[in-house]
Amino acid sequence: MEKVKVGVCGYGAVGQRLADGAARQGDMELVGIVDVAPTLAVRALHESGMAYDLYLVDMSRKPEFDALGIPIAGSFDDLLEQVDVALDATPAGIGAKNKVMYEKHSVKAIFQAGEKNDIVDVFFHGYANYEKGIGQSFLKLTSCNTTGLIRAVDALDREVGVEKVVITIIRRVADPGDTHRGLVDVLMVDPVPNHQAEDLMLIMPHVHATGLLVHTPVTHGHIISLVATPKKSISKIAFLDICRAHPRIRVFRIADGFNSNTSLWKYARDRGNKRGDMYEIGVWEECVGMSGKDILFAINIPQEPVTTPESLDGVRAAMEMQTDRLEAVGQTNKYLGLVPGR
Amino acid sequence: MEKVKVGVCGYGAVGQRLADGAARQGDMELVGIVDVAPTLAVRALHESGMAYDLYLVDMSRKPEFDALGIPIAGSFDDLLEQVDVALDATPAGIGAKNKVMYEKHSVKAIFQAGEKNDIVDVFFHGYANYEKGIGQSFLKLTSCNTTGLIRAVDALDREVGVEKVVITIIRRVADPGDTHRGLVDVLMVDPVPNHQAEDLMLIMPHVHATGLLVHTPVTHGHIISLVATPKKSISKIAFLDICRAHPRIRVFRIADGFNSNTSLWKYARDRGNKRGDMYEIGVWEECVGMSGKDILFAINIPQEPVTTPESLDGVRAAMEMQTDRLEAVGQTNKYLGLVPGR
Amino acid sequence: MEKVKVGVCGYGAVGQRLADGAARQGDMELVGIVDVAPTLAVRALHESGMAYDLYLVDMSRKPEFDALGIPIAGSFDDLLEQVDVALDATPAGIGAKNKVMYEKHSVKAIFQAGEKNDIVDVFFHGYANYEKGIGQSFLKLTSCNTTGLIRAVDALDREVGVEKVVITIIRRVADPGDTHRGLVDVLMVDPVPNHQAEDLMLIMPHVHATGLLVHTPVTHGHIISLVATPKKSISKIAFLDICRAHPRIRVFRIADGFNSNTSLWKYARDRGNKRGDMYEIGVWEECVGMSGKDILFAINIPQEPVTTPESLDGVRAAMEMQTDRLEAVGQTNKYLGLVPGR
Amino acid sequence: MEKVKVGVCGYGAVGQRLADGAARQGDMELVGIVDVAPTLAVRALHESGMAYDLYLVDMSRKPEFDALGIPIAGSFDDLLEQVDVALDATPAGIGAKNKVMYEKHSVKAIFQAGEKNDIVDVFFHGYANYEKGIGQSFLKLTSCNTTGLIRAVDALDREVGVEKVVITIIRRVADPGDTHRGLVDVLMVDPVPNHQAEDLMLIMPHVHATGLLVHTPVTHGHIISLVATPKKSISKIAFLDICRAHPRIRVFRIADGFNSNTSLWKYARDRGNKRGDMYEIGVWEECVGMSGKDILFAINIPQEPVTTPESLDGVRAAMEMQTDRLEAVGQTNKYLGLVPGR
Repeated sequence: MEKVKVGVCGYGAVGQRLADGAARQGDMELVGIVDVAPTLAVRALHESGMAYDLYLVDMSRKPEFDALGIPIAGSFDDLLEQVDVALDATPAGIGAKNKVMYEKHSVKAIFQAGEKNDIVDVFFHGYANYEKGIGQSFLKLTSCNTTGLIRAVDALDREVGVEKVVITIIRRVADPGDTHRGLVDVLMVDPVPNHQAEDLMLIMPHVHATGLLVHTPVTHGHIISLVATPKKSISKIAFLDICRAHPRIRVFRIADGFNSNTSLWKYARDRGNKRGDMYEIGVWEECVGMSGKDILFAINIPQEPVTTPESLDGVRAAMEMQTDRLEAVGQTNKYLGLVPGR
Repeated sequence: MEKVKVGVCGYGAVGQRLADGAARQGDMELVGIVDVAPTLAVRALHESGMAYDLYLVDMSRKPEFDALGIPIAGSFDDLLEQVDVALDATPAGIGAKNKVMYEKHSVKAIFQAGEKNDIVDVFFHGYANYEKGIGQSFLKLTSCNTTGLIRAVDALDREVGVEKVVITIIRRVADPGDTHRGLVDVLMVDPVPNHQAEDLMLIMPHVHATGLLVHTPVTHGHIISLVATPKKSISKIAFLDICRAHPRIRVFRIADGFNSNTSLWKYARDRGNKRGDMYEIGVWEECVGMSGKDILFAINIPQEPVTTPESLDGVRAAMEMQTDRLEAVGQTNKYLGLVPGR
Repeated sequence: MEKVKVGVCGYGAVGQRLADGAARQGDMELVGIVDVAPTLAVRALHESGMAYDLYLVDMSRKPEFDALGIPIAGSFDDLLEQVDVALDATPAGIGAKNKVMYEKHSVKAIFQAGEKNDIVDVFFHGYANYEKGIGQSFLKLTSCNTTGLIRAVDALDREVGVEKVVITIIRRVADPGDTHRGLVDVLMVDPVPNHQAEDLMLIMPHVHATGLLVHTPVTHGHIISLVATPKKSISKIAFLDICRAHPRIRVFRIADGFNSNTSLWKYARDRGNKRGDMYEIGVWEECVGMSGKDILFAINIPQEPVTTPESLDGVRAAMEMQTDRLEAVGQTNKYLGLVPGR
Repeated sequence: MEKVKVGVCGYGAVGQRLADGAARQGDMELVGIVDVAPTLAVRALHESGMAYDLYLVDMSRKPEFDALGIPIAGSFDDLLEQVDVALDATPAGIGAKNKVMYEKHSVKAIFQAGEKNDIVDVFFHGYANYEKGIGQSFLKLTSCNTTGLIRAVDALDREVGVEKVVITIIRRVADPGDTHRGLVDVLMVDPVPNHQAEDLMLIMPHVHATGLLVHTPVTHGHIISLVATPKKSISKIAFLDICRAHPRIRVFRIADGFNSNTSLWKYARDRGNKRGDMYEIGVWEECVGMSGKDILFAINIPQEPVTTPESLDGVRAAMEMQTDRLEAVGQTNKYLGLVPGR
């Protein structure tokens, strides 16, 4: 089978990870990436050996790259001529503009959560509604929090059914290194319900969701506290078994030293994972509790890499590489090295 | 009626506030405070005019105070000779030692939450179980989080009954100015259930409670997210009415600018409240939501002053100043200027 | 002598403090304050008893205040009709617009550091160049860091002469409660020289200054490290004596517990100072060192209140209340309770 | 030539990096590492394929490792039997105890800065006093801040001579992921002079040094502001040329986006460097300034990896692998990929 040809548009925090993820998929070919300026991410790519071909949105800026010795493979049009599908990781709102380009070149596209829902055919999550994305031209991913949240709720829902869920998002306010946003010594609240609860209901309309979001001054991962009302009773142990069986959920123990969002990130860092990235959401064994029939648990969302697997699932759906949900996510998982039971 | 004579033992973050609170009670007389060293709090007391008489635990350290010109009114024994009741705000574990002194002088005592439950007659909360404290010799207050939490749950419980509650505590990790503890760029989790849920069940055994606690790197107030299952259905509006009617709960609106824990603290600071203290817990109008019959809401816990009113209620109970719960808390509220409906 | 009539324009973090400071000056009368909206600061003023008359920039917004029961004394024009001088604490750039109003009403004005130098007659510091402000119509204050910095450098300069100074500013990135700016887990650098060094040279042209500025994720005060080259040798002890003799500089000891910017702020808070404000810059006794003839020391800048005294000095200069520098600052100090040797 | 056999004792934040560094040296063989418990670092090593043989301090704990499937190559004695030199990265004070073991096995050792000076033969820095370490049995490295500081001062000193230096250390208070230490919203000061200035004078006794240290709530690198008095005048451009010519110093530009300690770390992370590590100290081009003849500049200290190169230099000196300073550091640099002019 011929490989699906992929381009990554926007090489920032998300785009870098989508490029790395796509490059690891044995049945995809990463043709190249496109960006607008010699950003630090582009310089880092160059200094580490230019693993991916770089295309340029505005060729009039090519002299800036020439001066730095950074090779340019061609224009945005040149890239789109060669690809089947674009992973669009441009800043919110730019994707809508790029859509015109994608249509011109008959290229499908997977947008990130910053884009508006009305520019796409389907609001997509690899595990929860893969079927809806099959053969569609324009898909939009859920946000980092919603992606991880749905992974967990969908896993529980497929086993015992979920009637409703109340979430409390303890949100990291900036990515590591950000200087354009931040908070100091503040817990900031957003109105109830948060958009993640509403987005969950768009993807999983049979589950009622609401929730609170509190911004906190940290950078290495969100933590979500969930109170789920299952349709059938489920024990803590059974719940943890569901989590362990999921290739994109990983169970950790505080007793082992995994006592924080940062401990998970540091562990991935010490494993040698590029950028200290972990694709899996984390669940703490000791942070599961029962309230009557309701189950309380906490998940860790590594905000930078978490949407990568589902974005690649989106490529599979749009390009009809697999028409079976589990087969599709299974291929993504295989190439990313995601295995259950760790 | 003769005023009840009160001593405050330990003049740290809590003790300073108990002293100020007791001094404002028209039917109590603050005889003095006792501490061990010329701490910054003691120096601040001195520089601002020595509003309270200072007694000394270890008279051999008196020369240190003499050198600074700080007058000493007498020894710990001298203080206990004069008082009916001690508000003990010493570090965790010291209260247990002080109890011997209190017994020797036939002085009743109100301990803070750091002490073990087995050294006291009753684990006390002014609103939730005032009656249990009446005439007792040794009372222990709930912690800052639990005090605020019970205020809210008790208020709801008395109106519509509460079957169970699941809480997520977003905990400030240090007080302003602390250099002996802290976290940087970390969300740290504790095992479920947290002690606050367990403590709530000790005070309100008819309510099931569990919860998660996440430590966050901030100093100006905890935020607790609660999912309460009421026995009778209740609307958002009715819930907010209950909160507004409570003299120790205050409702704020994000739309007005109260968007964070810090905004409440800053508001109290700008009002001219001493130390920027606010005795009330805060509830955000926009942070109430329904999940089926369950109600979701968030409260702000000003960790430094929040236990002061209930501590003073404890004096009233122990000394039998009032035997009616509402009459007792009403007196405390009156003297602290706490009025409903703000 | 008739009191000088003062209005405060803009009732934010700075304006609130200027109003409190002006109200304490026995030879000034605070006629009122003016603002644009029912901000939290205005609500706090109202809730604590409306100590100052409030005027409104845009009278069409009066109904918003009426709905909250906040009395309005009149329009901006009404205020300017009654005052001799305005303390302008509006956001950067607004002061330039207000200048038209001040000129129309023949009112003098003292602007804060956010305004451009070219709208004023003199760039002013009460201690360093009081004489230049005498009788002028429009003065501009130095910024918080520069105000404190010049206090220290001027004090040293008047005793032994200062040839040059190199400063390293460890800057708090936001005020307590700010949600519109902040940094998480970042030390951000600005190019050398920082504007504070350049501003110092505008006020003290005989001293060469340069420096580095590093933004840090804290809120309770900047710390500046200074390396000063004196013209005559000076010992550590003599330097500390100069500091102790200055009513707006206060010497603290780490050994006493003053180990941080926050400890100074907390001390002021525990003293009962409104908002925990301290007008004095702090110098740590243990943080003075010699490098050959050069002297190294560190100062703490309480960013919110620090410019208040020098702003009031500005009123004295503009209104020719005193023509002698020391007499002028002495009056400001007396009314603010600033005494040397603490 | 036979490779020098190296063991790493203690596999924490420093030990992991020393192991990686030693493994990259073509003329050294990393025999193994030794630790006491199945820490997260050990688990990460295991999960990523057990790149290094693991030895155990206390063989009675072997069952804990067996249960996790982590292979143990032998005891601490077994490791020391096989090696020529130990890189000791155990917690402060443990190295002194290990020294008995090293002596028993006639193994030389390189200790980190936490150990006392009196247990070693020489206090060592690869660039500044390599000759003193040649053939010695026990060397102690400078701390992270001092290591980076001396790199810069030594580089300047060898070109133009340095008479004295005043430093202001803006210190990160914890490593990423630490939960046992931290600060929130505090700048904490230490007495002048800091130990780094004193340590510099031990290594470079011909330079006078003093300085201030301020702890700040960040994790991704210290920043040091230096005011150096050169013996011969030097321009900014010449200074930057010296930095660019040094393989362990790298010059960055704010204008390119390198505006913070975190930007350097993030750049290394995006390059794919393991753990986001960068061995080089950073100098910002725009943060160099002149004060008379004195030069002001700022350096970034990546606290976790920065001592690795100098530790490996220590192995070279102790084992007399090279007797020429530049040849020795040149070998370390070659194997770590450190080249000037970047």
